[in-house]
Amino acid sequence: MMSEDFLKRTIGVDVGLDWTNYALVDIRGTILARDRFKTFECPEMELFVSTLCEHLITFMENNGGYELVRSVGISAPNANFKTGAIEYAPNLPWKGEVPLAAMVRDRLGLACAIGNDAHTMALCEKVYGSARGLKDFIVVSIGKKGIGSCFYSQGVPHIGAEGFAGEFGHTCVVENGRECGCGKKGCLETYGSEYGCLMTAKELLEQSDEPSALRGSTLTLDVLKTCAEQGDPIAKEAFCKTAEVLGIALANYATVVDPEAIILTESMSHVGDVLMEPLKEAFERYVFHNIKNKVRIEVSVLSDEERDVLGASALAWDVKEYSLFT
Amino acid sequence: MMSEDFLKRTIGVDVGLDWTNYALVDIRGTILARDRFKTFECPEMELFVSTLCEHLITFMENNGGYELVRSVGISAPNANFKTGAIEYAPNLPWKGEVPLAAMVRDRLGLACAIGNDAHTMALCEKVYGSARGLKDFIVVSIGKKGIGSCFYSQGVPHIGAEGFAGEFGHTCVVENGRECGCGKKGCLETYGSEYGCLMTAKELLEQSDEPSALRGSTLTLDVLKTCAEQGDPIAKEAFCKTAEVLGIALANYATVVDPEAIILTESMSHVGDVLMEPLKEAFERYVFHNIKNKVRIEVSVLSDEERDVLGASALAWDVKEYSLFT
Repeated sequence: MMSEDFLKRTIGVDVGLDWTNYALVDIRGTILARDRFKTFECPEMELFVSTLCEHLITFMENNGGYELVRSVGISAPNANFKTGAIEYAPNLPWKGEVPLAAMVRDRLGLACAIGNDAHTMALCEKVYGSARGLKDFIVVSIGKKGIGSCFYSQGVPHIGAEGFAGEFGHTCVVENGRECGCGKKGCLETYGSEYGCLMTAKELLEQSDEPSALRGSTLTLDVLKTCAEQGDPIAKEAFCKTAEVLGIALANYATVVDPEAIILTESMSHVGDVLMEPLKEAFERYVFHNIKNKVRIEVSVLSDEERDVLGASALAWDVKEYSLFT
Repeated sequence: MMSEDFLKRTIGVDVGLDWTNYALVDIRGTILARDRFKTFECPEMELFVSTLCEHLITFMENNGGYELVRSVGISAPNANFKTGAIEYAPNLPWKGEVPLAAMVRDRLGLACAIGNDAHTMALCEKVYGSARGLKDFIVVSIGKKGIGSCFYSQGVPHIGAEGFAGEFGHTCVVENGRECGCGKKGCLETYGSEYGCLMTAKELLEQSDEPSALRGSTLTLDVLKTCAEQGDPIAKEAFCKTAEVLGIALANYATVVDPEAIILTESMSHVGDVLMEPLKEAFERYVFHNIKNKVRIEVSVLSDEERDVLGASALAWDVKEYSLFT
């Protein structure tokens, strides 16, 4: 990085399933401005790239000018930092391989790096969040439907041979279990995500006649959490079952990776003790004995909202390191 | 490495549960001489170190002299390359932390590196075996009782925060399953090792009245393999069940690590098609879709006998890189 870069800014773009968020970020990770547009209003990739670039040009003009921007970092599901493309992301509207980094670079004339959302999340924790100073750690997002992850090995992100490492949500935890969007059965995210936890609560309600404050309510994570905290046995049981699945899966992950810490992000990480206490208990019960009580399990210090664009902007600072498309 | 090192040799020592093997190895990996002694004849660590050093001194004198030896590499269960010690290895006679590398260095006056048996196995495959030229790969040993592993991330072994990464055999595959020597229940090695496979065959025999050539025979891996190859349904079923457990566990491992190849070693890797065909089928059924049919599963080209001492000798060549005890 050249010295005048400290005066420059990067743009972080997070391509989410609903919204595409973008922000102007300085080198210390301060978000100077941010905006967004609806991803799903762009059913064609061409339209998405035009829309994104138009938004970014206006955004830069309104926030100090184009010449202050050093580079662009884009975080997207199934983005492959090795090829600069989004490769068959099951939940995005564009199919096949999409060379997003090269397209944005050509339109904007700015260096552009692209990263899979799990890798940019871990980078963000390393640069600005709970993994500062750590060399071996795992970041796991436990969200509404998906579970993603990325781990660092001796200070370097583990990317994998094809750029797809860390697909923790698609490890099998129940043989012939619940159907997953990926086409397989029994994937962790069908049990451990917010959706999976609510499914478990629904099944428990159907299987018993026990009175529960959940009956008659619309089942949401907030309702489930409130009921569990008030002692509702079925709500507590739903979290305990979810915690057991997550605890074993995280213990297996840690047994293979041996991290200093596991950092949790997204909706399920904010549930609190009703989930985290049985999760940590299951984790210690199943982790390899030599690392028992040595792995910290923590909720990220960053908010989910800042992490999405900050991670993408961190990618942009190291654009030469993180992308061939500079 | 200095140029005259090409004329030098290293000694590789493999501390096994039954035998301690050692060999003199040149820089190309040729085993020039080898010998061994019984590990269990040394119930005290002090006695083990004295015995080992006496053996090595005589061995060097008989094979070209002490001055030709550059360094010593030692491979042992639960050896921690970061501390140079063996740390609580459940199956070895010495308990607690044993600073083996420093003890051997002090007695012999030679630089000494120590590595966990799984890490030296992977190093051996990378330097001399099936992982030559690969950057991201997993080596998994599926032996008589234990299952070990090590993976490489971008050409570098993943060691973990405490030096204990890769304990794949102690990932949980069956909740509240078979009791494992480590104190936990349902560890992979209680189902996927040779012992686990024979247990499964025994259970299948007890659960059915079906005629089987296995009844009345002493149950060994060779007998089971011969019967399965001759079409015995219970023997085939035992391998299929074992293959399913191993296939899912390997698919989960690959889904997180995304390797170019998985290299299998030790006794179970030599069973052949009756195990490998259903194993590969289960693997492809459960691995993350983006890397389906991209991960090669191969049996190591090295013999188990040469790998043990070769891996330790490879550790000795890079002694500065692999140990603090030089």
